[in-house]
Amino acid sequence: MSTGVWPFLEPRSVAVVGVSPSARNLGRNIVLNLIEFGYQGEIVPVGPKGGEVAGRTILPSVSAAAEPPDVAVILVPAARILPALEDCGRAGVRGVVVSSGGFSEYEGSRGATEAEMLAVARRHGFRLMGPNCIGVMNLANGLCMPFPLLARRDFLHGPHSLVAQSGGVMLYLADLLSEERLGIHVLVSEGNTLDVDEADLVAALAEDPGTRVIFLYLEGIRRGRALAEAAARSPKPVVALKANVGPGSAQIARSHTAALANDERVVDAAFRQAGILRLQSLEQFTVAAKAFALPPLRGDGIAVACMSGGISVVAADACARHGLSLPPLPADLLRGVEARGRGGVIRLGNPMDLGDIHDTGAVLEALEAALSQPQIHGVAFCLPSPASAGVIQGGLPAEEIVRRLRSLCDAFGKPVALSFFAGRRAVEPVQGKVDFPIFSSITESIEALALQRGFWRGRERARAFASPGRGAATELAACRERLRGCGGSVSAVEASAVLKDAGLPMEEIHLAASPEEAGAIAERLGYPVALKLVSPQVSHKTDVGGVALDLATREDVHAGFRRILDSARANAPAAEVQGVAVQRMRRGGQEVIVGARRDPVFGPVVLFGLGGIWVEALGDVAVRLAPIGREDALEMMDEIRGAALLRGLRGMAPADREAIAALLLSVSRLVVAAPEIRELDLNPVMVWQEGVAVLDARMILEPAPSLI
Amino acid sequence: MSTGVWPFLEPRSVAVVGVSPSARNLGRNIVLNLIEFGYQGEIVPVGPKGGEVAGRTILPSVSAAAEPPDVAVILVPAARILPALEDCGRAGVRGVVVSSGGFSEYEGSRGATEAEMLAVARRHGFRLMGPNCIGVMNLANGLCMPFPLLARRDFLHGPHSLVAQSGGVMLYLADLLSEERLGIHVLVSEGNTLDVDEADLVAALAEDPGTRVIFLYLEGIRRGRALAEAAARSPKPVVALKANVGPGSAQIARSHTAALANDERVVDAAFRQAGILRLQSLEQFTVAAKAFALPPLRGDGIAVACMSGGISVVAADACARHGLSLPPLPADLLRGVEARGRGGVIRLGNPMDLGDIHDTGAVLEALEAALSQPQIHGVAFCLPSPASAGVIQGGLPAEEIVRRLRSLCDAFGKPVALSFFAGRRAVEPVQGKVDFPIFSSITESIEALALQRGFWRGRERARAFASPGRGAATELAACRERLRGCGGSVSAVEASAVLKDAGLPMEEIHLAASPEEAGAIAERLGYPVALKLVSPQVSHKTDVGGVALDLATREDVHAGFRRILDSARANAPAAEVQGVAVQRMRRGGQEVIVGARRDPVFGPVVLFGLGGIWVEALGDVAVRLAPIGREDALEMMDEIRGAALLRGLRGMAPADREAIAALLLSVSRLVVAAPEIRELDLNPVMVWQEGVAVLDARMILEPAPSLI
Repeated sequence: MSTGVWPFLEPRSVAVVGVSPSARNLGRNIVLNLIEFGYQGEIVPVGPKGGEVAGRTILPSVSAAAEPPDVAVILVPAARILPALEDCGRAGVRGVVVSSGGFSEYEGSRGATEAEMLAVARRHGFRLMGPNCIGVMNLANGLCMPFPLLARRDFLHGPHSLVAQSGGVMLYLADLLSEERLGIHVLVSEGNTLDVDEADLVAALAEDPGTRVIFLYLEGIRRGRALAEAAARSPKPVVALKANVGPGSAQIARSHTAALANDERVVDAAFRQAGILRLQSLEQFTVAAKAFALPPLRGDGIAVACMSGGISVVAADACARHGLSLPPLPADLLRGVEARGRGGVIRLGNPMDLGDIHDTGAVLEALEAALSQPQIHGVAFCLPSPASAGVIQGGLPAEEIVRRLRSLCDAFGKPVALSFFAGRRAVEPVQGKVDFPIFSSITESIEALALQRGFWRGRERARAFASPGRGAATELAACRERLRGCGGSVSAVEASAVLKDAGLPMEEIHLAASPEEAGAIAERLGYPVALKLVSPQVSHKTDVGGVALDLATREDVHAGFRRILDSARANAPAAEVQGVAVQRMRRGGQEVIVGARRDPVFGPVVLFGLGGIWVEALGDVAVRLAPIGREDALEMMDEIRGAALLRGLRGMAPADREAIAALLLSVSRLVVAAPEIRELDLNPVMVWQEGVAVLDARMILEPAPSLI
Repeated sequence: MSTGVWPFLEPRSVAVVGVSPSARNLGRNIVLNLIEFGYQGEIVPVGPKGGEVAGRTILPSVSAAAEPPDVAVILVPAARILPALEDCGRAGVRGVVVSSGGFSEYEGSRGATEAEMLAVARRHGFRLMGPNCIGVMNLANGLCMPFPLLARRDFLHGPHSLVAQSGGVMLYLADLLSEERLGIHVLVSEGNTLDVDEADLVAALAEDPGTRVIFLYLEGIRRGRALAEAAARSPKPVVALKANVGPGSAQIARSHTAALANDERVVDAAFRQAGILRLQSLEQFTVAAKAFALPPLRGDGIAVACMSGGISVVAADACARHGLSLPPLPADLLRGVEARGRGGVIRLGNPMDLGDIHDTGAVLEALEAALSQPQIHGVAFCLPSPASAGVIQGGLPAEEIVRRLRSLCDAFGKPVALSFFAGRRAVEPVQGKVDFPIFSSITESIEALALQRGFWRGRERARAFASPGRGAATELAACRERLRGCGGSVSAVEASAVLKDAGLPMEEIHLAASPEEAGAIAERLGYPVALKLVSPQVSHKTDVGGVALDLATREDVHAGFRRILDSARANAPAAEVQGVAVQRMRRGGQEVIVGARRDPVFGPVVLFGLGGIWVEALGDVAVRLAPIGREDALEMMDEIRGAALLRGLRGMAPADREAIAALLLSVSRLVVAAPEIRELDLNPVMVWQEGVAVLDARMILEPAPSLI
């Protein structure tokens, strides 16, 4: 698939469809942009009125071109899109960008037109980008498809590529990355992602030599699994802002790029497992770009150096907020630096407040000494205003200090995140002279180190998409055979049998048809036992008096059975009673919940949470895409807010985490092997200091495919 | 107190102590700064070496001045500070700024010098600012005490005053507020706040006609109650960044301004009750300054208008994150705006994506229509780049559009938070031409509206420091009398009696000395009962077998009593047994915790949380400064994360919130009236659908004042 999108990024020729010589014509702007950006391939303007634009004849159709163009950009009203696509197909183009809007994002019913567009593309064998987009810019080859008139001088070429589900956001980020002197390479506005989407483009950009970091702006993800897999395979950092997360955002996102809201917990899990760094705002893109211009931060420990006590305090707060630590520096190092101070009035530690050191050499030596410490993985360094010359610069211009910092970064392979303790008017002149990132404040520099750390930590432990594990296919064949016999809703007794086949530690549940049969089962299981009504019409058994707990003798079981049937008849006379389930009462452990779902975008996911109020009142659940590995399972247990409870709070025995992990792995294997399972809830699962048992299970299957 | 600090802000004459003619002398810089900033009062340079600076003779002492200067700024080594202060005192100055550092912030033992400094000030009747600070700047009268050389042109006069516990941070914020064209008025660097502190300065600035907003940067608060009271009385917004919140920050803050860490939950409560807006970063100061330049946001509902679908989605996410809502706009309003579109390809809602409206008049009319809606309390408006002329400007220069927005703001008394969808290089030229805040992004503009909303909501419901309530003094006299009879640690039985006197719904607890006495008490209370060992040496009764629960008959009580004594003798042979407490077992309710503490900085506070793991595993506690009112108490219950449990989750009965509120008010009254109570824990408190009972109480008193 990935090679299929190259014509969009590096076409040898571009047709622009919908061009007229009028100054108000937007197609004409595209032609002018291509010329302005220095595109060297063939430009083929197409439009029904003929005429010329920038010395090029406007052809009546794409098919009229001498050679089939690699790609066509179409900007005609929605109602005329299908003939235009047919024309492109006949001409033999390899890709079409539909810039026109007014499709499913405008009105859901226009999805029918989109389906026809896709059918035309499939029939002719070309790929489709958009509709409702502004296409591609490639600063390496001058490709520039947007229809607003742009000036080449506003854009700086650099190693950052961007895929955006919004043309406006694409141009905004290009502006920010250019003015921060970070630069841009390939920019793609995808629009409604009818065919070509971010999964295709990440795969392509991962192989693009001009791209060092891949940025994504997404409002809705349709092929989540494919995107996660492409990102996990990318040797380059993938950094994403996933917008459309609030309840009020869904409607506007839908009418903007027809984006549907995703389950954000699943998005978080997928990004984490695929090693995608998730941003929270558009403005963080430049912070991330600066961060990735530095060597990787390989540990949590950093040193802070600055010339103000106040900044030191603010920096230490920021480190705490972002989970970075400030390991102590050796006393002899600190006393050596202090000795070079002027007033002898500042005590050094980490942060190092170098406000009393009025000598550039001494400051740089202090930095170097800190970087040479094994416990220090990077430095946040805040210089005073470049304008306040003479305070520490000691005759060196600020840009020379920055160059020396860059050498230190390179020499140690550790990041030095630089900021100035001054507003930007003082800093911008320096920024223009150096090829080294300057952060807008010490807070931003620490945020950047933390972003970077988060990314590299994720990469180090990337265990995304662990293999489903041994025997999944063969051992689970029996489960799937049994599932074929079930309807859409599986009874607790049926589910229990399936899960037992799948190797889960199911508490035995047996169906009794009479008091005597229930008593016999209880005798075999051992007392006390619980009885529960089994009826497809009754899901809340307690409400109809369908549960009897703590039954300690055969007589109690007989009485309990009768009581349940009487209650059911009185409270739910229409319910079909299949029998009464008998199981042993289990005590003394902690209740947890294990589950699985089939996410429509990301496929099978597994869930873990503590029982009762933790899930209901706090929504405290950990999620991962299946299949997972043991480390993922243990991480899920650490991730929930009530994690301390499993470790044994206040003298409580710790829970058997390995047994829970094994259960999570079994569930993961099962839902990967059996795609017919739509939902699975093991609730409650009882866990002890040793061992775990599933006490109840609920399973829902996908509807069987219709035969008609 | 507040008038006592005016000489620091508006002195008629300033002595600068520690001046020499050397170009390296920092005292000389202060004289030069005063001249540079146009200070019109008398400047009196003082230094032992004599000579001249800027045409002024350097006097040998402050006393040698013809008239006593209003204030003196001292910059001499720490070792020479006391004679310099004596000189100032003899001369009759009203205030002294000690700029010198190297006191308690450098080494704790130097606190002794600070105590002597304070003694000199008290003896001579002058106020002291610092040490370890850079004093005051007042752009209205040219006062400029910092010792780094400054240029007047770098600072813009405006309505924002600042009190900072860091000179570096003060100058940094002055730079940011100046370059953003927001302006500064009075700036104070307080240093170690030995005498003059932020409580004094907030009180003074609250009365200063040139100050519209008071900003604070604090690392440690010493007179928290006084600060909160001054802020609560201020008619102007007080906005604070309280730094030094992380574990790694405490040491650096201590060696920076000798600041001690505060209990951040108490700081949060105090700020909230005093209506102080709490910021999270230095960079938020400019956001807040811009926010307060707009009319107040009087409700949560705003409209978003912009020219990009992507920005609309990002804006809607930001609204959700900040708790602002996007109420629907009337259909006829939206269809009317849509009708003026060009392509007819964008559906309008709220956010309004005006990307299809290419007519400035229509855009401004849409904004006006939105502002006229009663459910819309403000607007976040994002214009395209001023450089992309012709897209919507329609011939109007951007600054003219901004002026019209300003008129709309004024006309409706509602804020329009403006940003441009472009980098700052395109926006800065506009900013230079208008007196209206321009935010750096739509995200920042929504953050600003939320900050403002938070502030005004806090003001509307400001109930800070409710009166202790009726009868506190007289009714609680009995409690205090009883407390005088107790030692430092109060037994559960004594505490129970005190709290009962204070009107708390204490479950009766009686001390029994024998099995028979316990049995008789149980008969009177009714069964079942609980027995608990009472011994000053045993705090964890369960560990020594000191508890017997659920005793249902007189015989059970006899046996339980003996079992407890036997266990205590076996497990804690050295413990002095005072008896066994008998109380009725209570069931069926929810357990909550109510408490109180005496904070060393903020005075009495009350606490509320859910029982058990909620407090222990999650630290889920709500805090308020006492005295509180009923509304505060109800708010505390809503604030905890497990709030849903009290409202009746999953068919559970809701808890009696009014009864809990009454209990919190009683505790608040008690700890205000009885300052000898250092800690009070009511744990557990059982609450039912109707009523509440305190089942156990622990009380610790302040150590009695020593008699020697």
